[in-house]
Amino acid sequence: MTWLITGGAGYIGGHVVQQLLDAGERVAVLDDLSTGDRTRLPKEVALVEGSTLDRAALDAAIREHQVEGVLHFAAKKQVGESVEQPFLYYRENVIGLQTVLEAAAEGGVKRFLFSSSAAVYGMPDVDLVTESTPCAPMSPYGETKLAGEWLVAAAGKAYGMSTVALRYFNVAGAASPELSDAGVFNLIPMVFERLTAGQAPRVFGDDYPTPDGTCVRDFIHVSDIASAHVAAAKRLAADPAGATSLVLNIGRGEGVSVREMLDVIGKVTGYDATPEITPRRAGDPARVVASADLINRELDWTARHGVESMVASAWEGWCSRHPEARK
Amino acid sequence: MTWLITGGAGYIGGHVVQQLLDAGERVAVLDDLSTGDRTRLPKEVALVEGSTLDRAALDAAIREHQVEGVLHFAAKKQVGESVEQPFLYYRENVIGLQTVLEAAAEGGVKRFLFSSSAAVYGMPDVDLVTESTPCAPMSPYGETKLAGEWLVAAAGKAYGMSTVALRYFNVAGAASPELSDAGVFNLIPMVFERLTAGQAPRVFGDDYPTPDGTCVRDFIHVSDIASAHVAAAKRLAADPAGATSLVLNIGRGEGVSVREMLDVIGKVTGYDATPEITPRRAGDPARVVASADLINRELDWTARHGVESMVASAWEGWCSRHPEARK
Repeated sequence: MTWLITGGAGYIGGHVVQQLLDAGERVAVLDDLSTGDRTRLPKEVALVEGSTLDRAALDAAIREHQVEGVLHFAAKKQVGESVEQPFLYYRENVIGLQTVLEAAAEGGVKRFLFSSSAAVYGMPDVDLVTESTPCAPMSPYGETKLAGEWLVAAAGKAYGMSTVALRYFNVAGAASPELSDAGVFNLIPMVFERLTAGQAPRVFGDDYPTPDGTCVRDFIHVSDIASAHVAAAKRLAADPAGATSLVLNIGRGEGVSVREMLDVIGKVTGYDATPEITPRRAGDPARVVASADLINRELDWTARHGVESMVASAWEGWCSRHPEARK
Repeated sequence: MTWLITGGAGYIGGHVVQQLLDAGERVAVLDDLSTGDRTRLPKEVALVEGSTLDRAALDAAIREHQVEGVLHFAAKKQVGESVEQPFLYYRENVIGLQTVLEAAAEGGVKRFLFSSSAAVYGMPDVDLVTESTPCAPMSPYGETKLAGEWLVAAAGKAYGMSTVALRYFNVAGAASPELSDAGVFNLIPMVFERLTAGQAPRVFGDDYPTPDGTCVRDFIHVSDIASAHVAAAKRLAADPAGATSLVLNIGRGEGVSVREMLDVIGKVTGYDATPEITPRRAGDPARVVASADLINRELDWTARHGVESMVASAWEGWCSRHPEARK
């Protein structure tokens, strides 16, 4: 069967396209290339250059490629920007999603996978976040992801689609330099940017109730994220249409502090990663670490990569775009 | 200042229009008359016949009437229908709201009031539901109301609007027969419909952990709902733009069981309201009663009407449309 990957030219979507091809699946990509990059895609992959808000482009792509399943990645994903421009986020992430879902439902597509985020949890006050931890998103970005999960589940129920929503924790690393994250909104690239500009990395608060006082997160290699999607796609393909409605964390189930991550970054890059401590940012929870039990049970999936591999592969990607950075 | 009332020809919107006029405010109404009724509006009120999805109609209404505040009632509101047709609900209740908010923000409107619902709470496991009780909606209808609250608050923050979301509990009654609820989706009209058709009213479960085994709700007279809106509008008008972001329950803070309500209905109508007990419906919480402390504090508002007045006024409305019903 053929999968339509919206946002397939993006950082995570690009990795999933690669692994689906490696697994022998057929894929077509819809991407407006607003942040995606055509060079992330192998030449043989059909790219429909279009927005998720463009119903006609979606209908044509589903018809032309005889799409039977959709993996929906296309979305805006910056928390701060979502506070400044909430309409943009609701339009792209909710209305865009609804447009894709309507095209899928009317096009007879019975399998749908949705990119969600640990941001749906907000400030979870638990050691390990399970899928039944109450959701209380703290930003328009997180809100649009939770509303998106609801819409996907409701559409699945109303139209007999099997659905999976995957809640990503802190994605990092790259399978290859060309596929690496070109943005500087996640911790590792943010630190690379400051180090290579001769600035100390910033740590927002070291007085959190954590072992070393800095925030603790569940970092996960994008190749592990991608393999979880392949497992989910196989599950969707195998189950009868409409039988499945899953919401799953994708994490390693292991907390790593920001300070520990800086130590690894210093070791890998050869830069002095001694941080400058600045005040806490509003809305940063002390600890957000996934329970990965449910995804392990449902998809027989486990993360394979550790933090060193995330940092080293991210650094290769950074240096491929900034050759002067390498010491 | 002039208020634009979307859905102002509806059951609740119509009551609010009336009370705002009585309070000396200027109003204009936008309603697509899909469920609203022009005869609910006094002749002197300007009616723009249009959908909340029609940006041009919204822009024109805001410009033409020099609108400075919006009260947004227009929405789909049937829980069961929302399960069958989730796309319809997200389109009307979220995309429609976003269209109104965008028109308001770009039109310089700085006051926005949103009709929300106790459905945002889902199955609250507390004696009195406060505004900080966790939200976990159980239907697409409730989800669109919670997503709507988020969008309103985010838009207020990003664009300097003062906002209020009011969470309605179980609205009933009418200020006059012409303004009464023409639908049969709420308890009282549902019971009237069965009684006057010679059928016993149905009670879905009498084995709930409540004093008489039937579900307990917080019924509130629509005239009280309307007076809370007038108080909220005055607060929005008095506060500096962008200073206010409130989410408030509107309830009486008093639980009434379905069986107690049937007793009152029997007394008021003269029909034998002995119920037929049928199995529980999925998703009905045992008890949902508001804490009305916050709205009392913030708006100096209290409900004035009791259950008898709700039933009697609803019955007058029913009989005005079904004269053969009166015994």
